[in-house]
Amino acid sequence: MEAQNTGSGKKPHILVCNDDGIDAEGLHVLAASMRKIGTVTVVAPSEPRSGMAHAMTLGVPIRINKQTKNNRFFGYSVSGTPVDCIKVALNHILPEKPDLIVSGINYGSNTATNTLYSGTLGAALEGVIQYVPSLAFSLATYKDADFTYAGKFARKLARKVLREGLPPDTILSVNIPNLPESAVRGVAITAQGKSRWAENTIEREDMYGNPYYWLSGELQLLDNEMLYDEYAVKQHYVAITPVSIDMTNHSALKALRRWKLNR
Amino acid sequence: MEAQNTGSGKKPHILVCNDDGIDAEGLHVLAASMRKIGTVTVVAPSEPRSGMAHAMTLGVPIRINKQTKNNRFFGYSVSGTPVDCIKVALNHILPEKPDLIVSGINYGSNTATNTLYSGTLGAALEGVIQYVPSLAFSLATYKDADFTYAGKFARKLARKVLREGLPPDTILSVNIPNLPESAVRGVAITAQGKSRWAENTIEREDMYGNPYYWLSGELQLLDNEMLYDEYAVKQHYVAITPVSIDMTNHSALKALRRWKLNR
Repeated sequence: MEAQNTGSGKKPHILVCNDDGIDAEGLHVLAASMRKIGTVTVVAPSEPRSGMAHAMTLGVPIRINKQTKNNRFFGYSVSGTPVDCIKVALNHILPEKPDLIVSGINYGSNTATNTLYSGTLGAALEGVIQYVPSLAFSLATYKDADFTYAGKFARKLARKVLREGLPPDTILSVNIPNLPESAVRGVAITAQGKSRWAENTIEREDMYGNPYYWLSGELQLLDNEMLYDEYAVKQHYVAITPVSIDMTNHSALKALRRWKLNR
Repeated sequence: MEAQNTGSGKKPHILVCNDDGIDAEGLHVLAASMRKIGTVTVVAPSEPRSGMAHAMTLGVPIRINKQTKNNRFFGYSVSGTPVDCIKVALNHILPEKPDLIVSGINYGSNTATNTLYSGTLGAALEGVIQYVPSLAFSLATYKDADFTYAGKFARKLARKVLREGLPPDTILSVNIPNLPESAVRGVAITAQGKSRWAENTIEREDMYGNPYYWLSGELQLLDNEMLYDEYAVKQHYVAITPVSIDMTNHSALKALRRWKLNR
């Protein structure tokens, strides 16, 4: 673990991002929570960018606008993806690297294969690529969201990470049940689960009789062990998964070398 | 390794996708190469979608159009991302799952951290999520591309994978030097390298004096071992990296459990 040196007594600088956009409730809860332990800069997409994964904007210019809330400066909105937000924040908005990046709090869980689709995780992974300790937070619900406990837990974990650092090239992806604190059973350190989307792409006809398609589906629970993120959240635990930017299947290298492709 | 049962004597069905779009030369070379060993269906983005990673299109309808080449049907263009292409291909275009998905041949290498940004890999990773063996091919150049050897090597590897299968939840990301066959020194089985982009985001002013930003940079070689993809390609080897959809840093689980976050 590489602890971040924040200087003695100096307040840590925390960059807050998300993928649901600058107006999302989860972002405002997360920013307010982080302000209790550090100096906060918010840089978030100008509109919802769910499912954008690690996408970045190429060949199209990016705009940055200052946003107010209750007539006070709140943060910067960026016309691109969550990854773009981190890139322009570190290259143009912030005078120096922040001590921590937090992304979220996402509306909906980012467990199992959602790890690959999530823009919330995309922003945090970009943070680590840029050598900044980064955390992603998601609330496991699509309705009746209550971010109260999630905001509190995010602060507890941020404090811990500012003190202890993180394993190299790794973020923590934190999935929090949509429950009051008293109903949460604890914290589980988990692996990315096997659960996958049951695809249900919808085909419809437009007003001219031409077909169009709409991606849809639902995450099917394929896990039944506390080792896995989606199952742990379903069991009312906060699931913390260490997610690496190294996607190599290291255990496959040996078998592939036996293929003797040089012949 | 789970070998794919293609039925005795039946030609394999190969789905060809990319992220450079339906008109890209690398796609046409790959499709032509695969036609020599199987029945091919091409489903590719209607326009270039580089850097789209594992992004999918949510909340906006997707259109599918038939494309011709020399007045003959060539394939389907899709108004979304590379991942969208795989989703609509498997859900709406193909009558049954293909035996293999090949993505590329990308214009430019997809080594090191580009593993996370690449739409070429996004398509192949989506293939594995949908339980289809999948390969991603990239030519390591941004100018004077010669896809001849890359097309031939792709066919050799596709044949091998149709016979041998792939490790679970894993694609092969193949980076090929832009050289004639005689100059390629061999095949290296590699890990995702440590090389990262040196960011060089450009700030400019538009005609109204307002700033805009343009993402740019170049991949800096930070590796010096044949274990790593970018270094191996620079040494004139074909680099084959097994890339997993499981992004968990399994080696970090133990240390994180010592954090005792339940207190």
